[in-house]
Amino acid sequence: MTAHRPARKGITDPTPTDLAHITAGPFPGSRKLYLTPAGRPELRVPVRAISQTPTTERVGGVTRTTPNPDVYVYDASGPYTDANAAFDLTRGLPAARTWLGGGEGHLTQLQAARRGIITPEMEYVALREALRQPGDFDLDHQHPGEGWGASLPREVTPEFVRSEVARGRAIIPANVRHPELEPMIIGRGFRVKVNANIGNSAVRASVTDEVEKLVWATRWGADTVMDLSTGPDIHRTREWIVRNSPVPIGTVPIYQALEKVGGKAEELSWDVYRETLIEQAEQGVDYFTVHAGVRLAHLPLTMRRRTGIVSRGGSILARWCLAHHRENFLYTHFAEICEIMAAYDVSFSLGDGLRPGSIEDANDAAQFAELGTLGELTQVAWAHGVQTMIEGPGHVPLHLIRENVERQLSVCGEAPFYTLGPLTTDIAPGYDHITSAIGAANIGWYGTAMLCYVTPKEHLGLPDKNDVREGVIAYKIAAHAADLAKGLPGVQARDNALSKARFEFRWEDQFNLALDPERARAYHDETLPAEAAKTAHFCSMCGPQFCSMRLSQDLQEDLAALALADLEASLQEKAQEFREGGHALYLTAPVEL
Amino acid sequence: MTAHRPARKGITDPTPTDLAHITAGPFPGSRKLYLTPAGRPELRVPVRAISQTPTTERVGGVTRTTPNPDVYVYDASGPYTDANAAFDLTRGLPAARTWLGGGEGHLTQLQAARRGIITPEMEYVALREALRQPGDFDLDHQHPGEGWGASLPREVTPEFVRSEVARGRAIIPANVRHPELEPMIIGRGFRVKVNANIGNSAVRASVTDEVEKLVWATRWGADTVMDLSTGPDIHRTREWIVRNSPVPIGTVPIYQALEKVGGKAEELSWDVYRETLIEQAEQGVDYFTVHAGVRLAHLPLTMRRRTGIVSRGGSILARWCLAHHRENFLYTHFAEICEIMAAYDVSFSLGDGLRPGSIEDANDAAQFAELGTLGELTQVAWAHGVQTMIEGPGHVPLHLIRENVERQLSVCGEAPFYTLGPLTTDIAPGYDHITSAIGAANIGWYGTAMLCYVTPKEHLGLPDKNDVREGVIAYKIAAHAADLAKGLPGVQARDNALSKARFEFRWEDQFNLALDPERARAYHDETLPAEAAKTAHFCSMCGPQFCSMRLSQDLQEDLAALALADLEASLQEKAQEFREGGHALYLTAPVEL
Repeated sequence: MTAHRPARKGITDPTPTDLAHITAGPFPGSRKLYLTPAGRPELRVPVRAISQTPTTERVGGVTRTTPNPDVYVYDASGPYTDANAAFDLTRGLPAARTWLGGGEGHLTQLQAARRGIITPEMEYVALREALRQPGDFDLDHQHPGEGWGASLPREVTPEFVRSEVARGRAIIPANVRHPELEPMIIGRGFRVKVNANIGNSAVRASVTDEVEKLVWATRWGADTVMDLSTGPDIHRTREWIVRNSPVPIGTVPIYQALEKVGGKAEELSWDVYRETLIEQAEQGVDYFTVHAGVRLAHLPLTMRRRTGIVSRGGSILARWCLAHHRENFLYTHFAEICEIMAAYDVSFSLGDGLRPGSIEDANDAAQFAELGTLGELTQVAWAHGVQTMIEGPGHVPLHLIRENVERQLSVCGEAPFYTLGPLTTDIAPGYDHITSAIGAANIGWYGTAMLCYVTPKEHLGLPDKNDVREGVIAYKIAAHAADLAKGLPGVQARDNALSKARFEFRWEDQFNLALDPERARAYHDETLPAEAAKTAHFCSMCGPQFCSMRLSQDLQEDLAALALADLEASLQEKAQEFREGGHALYLTAPVEL
Repeated sequence: MTAHRPARKGITDPTPTDLAHITAGPFPGSRKLYLTPAGRPELRVPVRAISQTPTTERVGGVTRTTPNPDVYVYDASGPYTDANAAFDLTRGLPAARTWLGGGEGHLTQLQAARRGIITPEMEYVALREALRQPGDFDLDHQHPGEGWGASLPREVTPEFVRSEVARGRAIIPANVRHPELEPMIIGRGFRVKVNANIGNSAVRASVTDEVEKLVWATRWGADTVMDLSTGPDIHRTREWIVRNSPVPIGTVPIYQALEKVGGKAEELSWDVYRETLIEQAEQGVDYFTVHAGVRLAHLPLTMRRRTGIVSRGGSILARWCLAHHRENFLYTHFAEICEIMAAYDVSFSLGDGLRPGSIEDANDAAQFAELGTLGELTQVAWAHGVQTMIEGPGHVPLHLIRENVERQLSVCGEAPFYTLGPLTTDIAPGYDHITSAIGAANIGWYGTAMLCYVTPKEHLGLPDKNDVREGVIAYKIAAHAADLAKGLPGVQARDNALSKARFEFRWEDQFNLALDPERARAYHDETLPAEAAKTAHFCSMCGPQFCSMRLSQDLQEDLAALALADLEASLQEKAQEFREGGHALYLTAPVEL
C-alpha cells in the first residue's frame, strides 16, 4: 500500500504542532477491548467497555453493596480512543485488515457472498453487530420491537451477514485499498448507522481541520465519513483523511472532476470523470455518490418546484445535460463505472440529485422519477457485483416519510436506504439537526439503514468542530431511537444501565454511560460542582426535598419492608371496595351536566 | 383585581434595576398586529407580521422585481414584543380580557359551551387559530395531512371552538382571576401547543430570574408556562408570574402544600391542600396538576420498575398513601376539588404520577392502571363542569408511542392529552430536548394537544435561560412538525415562505422567518459577516462554485428560455428510446450474476 501513501510535501500539509491538537484518548470510565472469534486472531473487533461503580442499598438497616458489570458499546472511534494504541498521523493508521493481499483478482463482498464465501470482513461485522454484554444483570430485558418486515434474527451470525450481503440487502463498504478500515455493515437487519459529512469549501480550507473533523466525528460515533471537499487541494486532503480513517470514507467524485475543468459544469466529460474515479478508488475511498439517476427527461419535472434542485451533484449534472441537451453521461456510462468500482470493491451510493429541498417539494414527481431510475441502476450495479445503497431525502413532513421507505424498498429491491435527515419542517435554520433528527429517527425505524447527519449550520454555513459534535450526537440519538423501536437484540442494555445508574444516584456512571459524558457532567456541575454532589441523592433541578427519585427509592424500601404479598392482597381488596362503592360519592353531588 | 396584586414588599422583590434586564422588544423584521372580529373591538387577537423584501429575477436579461407579502405567525409572546405596548412589571400587565366582570356567578367555559354560549374567549381563540395569511402568493399550498381521526375543519369558527369545548375535546384554560391572559385553546383539532416549565428550587431561587424566564419562554413561543417552584417564597414568586403573564399559568399545588408542612409528605392533609388550592385559584392560576390518579392499589405495580416513580407529585402522594396506609386524599376529595376549580374556571391537568421514567418502564401496568383512574376522574370533572386535560409520559420508545395516544383518547373520552416529551431513549443526558423532541413530534402528530418541553438540563440540573430557549425551540419544532403532518389548514405557509426566501437568496428574510432569527443570522455571520454576503448567491457551506441553489436557479432560467413545452416532448421521446434500447447496453456487458 505504500504506493498510495501521500507525498507529505507542500505548504498545506499539517505540521507536528498542528497534529498535536488532534483529539485522542479514551472516554472517561472507558477502555477499548478487542473481541476475537475463536481461532481468528487477526480479527480484532473493537468495543468500548464502560465500567460502573457498585450499587449500595440499605436493606433492613444494613448496607449491601453489589457490583455492576461493565457495559459494552459499539465503538466506531478507531485507535484514537485506545489508550494503548500507537499511531503516527503522518504515516497513517496501522492496517486493521491485515488479511488483505495485493488486492488483485479479488471478489467484491457481494460476489463472494453470492458464492457462499464468508469473508473476514463478514466475520468481523458479525461479531461487531452481535455485541453481547459481559454481565447480564437484567440488562438484556427489552421491549419487543416493530421491524416493519426487516429480517432481525435473535443472533447475528457470519452466515446471516453473508446472506444479507448476497441478497443486496446490506453492504460492507471496504475498498481493497483501504486496509486501515475497521469493517462495518450497512443494512436494515443491523444497527442503524450514521454518516458525518466533512470537507472544506473554497471559503474555508485546512487539511488539519479536516483530519481533526474526521477523528472528532468518529469519536462521537460517526460510522462513516464523507469527504465533500470542494476547495483547493482536494486530492491531498482526501489522502490524509483516508490514511487516517478507521471508518469507510465516501466521496462525490463529480466535485473533484468539476474542479479539474475549472468549475465549468458544461466542460465536464466522461474522460475527466473516469480518471477521477480511478484516482479516488486507488486512494482507497470506500463508497462513491454517483448521481446517475439525474436524467435529462426528469429535469422539466423540477421546473415548478419551490426549491428546484438542491443537491450539488444533481444541479451540476442537470446543468451539463441542459448545456449539451444530452443524457447524463453518468447514466450512459454506468456499466463502465460499475467495472471500475468492482475492481476495487468501491460501493455505490446512488445519489438522489433530485431530492426535495423543501417541505413543499417532498414526494413529488421529480423525486420519484429519479428513484425509479435508481431502481434500474441497482440491478445493473448488482449484475456487475457492485455493492449498492440508495440515497434519499431531504425535506419531508412526518406523515410522508414512510412512503419514502416503502417505495425505495420496493423499487430498489431492498438495497440499503441512506437518507439525509429528512428535515420535518423548513422553519428552523440554526436547529436543523433537530428538525432532521425527528425525521431521521422515524425513517430509521421504518427501515433506513444509514442516516446522513445534518448539523446546526445546515443552510447557513460550513460546520465547525462543535457543529460536527452536535450533528453526530443528534443522529446517534435518532439511530438509537430507531434501533430500540425495531427491537434489535440487546440494544436496550445501555438505556437500562443508564436508567439504573440514574435511579441509584450513581452520577459518575450516568455520565460515563451517556452518549456525551463530557456534556452530561458539565451540565450537572454548572449548579453543583462539588465532588460530594456526585453521590448526592438529588440534583439542582428539584433540590433534595423534591427529588422524586429519592422519594421513590425510599418508597421502594418501605414497600419491601411491608411484606409485599400481603400488602398486594389487602390493597386489591380495598380497590375493589372503592370501585363498587366509590362512584356514588361523586355522582350524587349537585352538578351541572 | 387589585385585591390580588402582590404586596410589593420584602427583600426578594425585584428592583427596577433588576427589571430593566427583562427581555423585551419586537423580533427583527416583525411587528405586532391585533386582529379584531367585526363589531367586537374589545377582542384584540395578537399576531406577528414578518415583512419580506421583494423577489428580484432576471427574465430574458431584464431584471424584474416582485413584492413578497407579510407572513403572519401565531404569537404567544404578549405585549413584551410589541414596540408600542406600555407595561410596568411592578403593576402587572394591563387586562387583555376587559370583558371580565367581578367573576361572580359565572359559568366555566365548559358549562357555557354546553349551553350553546359562545364566550368572548371562544371567539378570540377562533380568530387566533384560523390565522389567515394577508397575501396568498401560493403560500397556502400544502400537503394533505393525516389526522388520525381528529376533527380538522377547513376553517376554525367560534362555533367549532364551542362544540369542541362542549365535547370536552378542547379546553380554554382561563381563570376568571387572570384578566392579563390572552386566551388560547388546547385540543386535538387545533395547533399543537407547547408548555415550558419554570420555577425555582431550594438550590437556586430569584423572583427576577423567574419573571425573566416567563417572558423569555413566551418570547420563543411557549403557549403556557408552569411555575414549578419548590423553593422559598412560592406565593410571592407566583404572584409576580401570574400578574405578568399573557399565557395560562399552570401549577402543581401539592408542592406548595408540602412546603407548608415543612416538607414532610406524611403530614400533608386535605385541609392544607384545600387551602392551597383556593389560595392559588384566587391568584389566577389557570390550570392545576392534580395527581388524583395515584391510588394506593397501584403502588405495588411500581415495585419491579427500573425507575420507580419519577413524578415529584406522584412520589409525594405515594409516600403519603403508604405512611397512612390510606387511599390518596386527592382521590377521596376529588369532588370537592372540582367544586373549587369550577368556581374559578381553573382547568384540570390530571397528573400522571406513575408515568414511566425510563424506556424499560414504558407502557407498563402501573402507567395504564393510573390512566384508567384518570379516565374515571375525567367523567367526574366534566360532571362538575371543570375543563380537563390528561398528562402523559415520559420515556417511551418510538414504536410504543401511538398506543399511549390511542388508549388515552379511548379511556379519557378524548379529553386533550398533554405529554412530557416522551423521551425516545435514556442514553443522552445533556441532549434530552432532542431525545424528547423526537417523541414529542410523533405523539403530537398522533393527537396530543400540548407538549411539555424538556430542556438540555433534564435529569442534570435546573435549566437556565439558555436551556429554556433550547427547550422551547426544540418543542416549537416538534409541534410544528406535528401540525404539518396533521395537515392543519395554512400551517405550511411559513415553511413555503422561508423556502422561497432561501431559494431566492433573500438571507434577511430567511433569518426573519426562522423560529430563532438571532441564531440563524449568527450562524450565517460566523463565516461570512460582511453585509454584502446577505445578498450573495451562496454561503460558506459550499462556496460560490458549488452552491446547488445558485446552479438550480440558473437552470430554471435556462429551462424557461428553452420553451418548456417543446423540450418536454423531445425529452420524453428520448427517454422512451432509452428505455427501449438502453438496457441492452448494460446487460450484454460481461458480468457475474
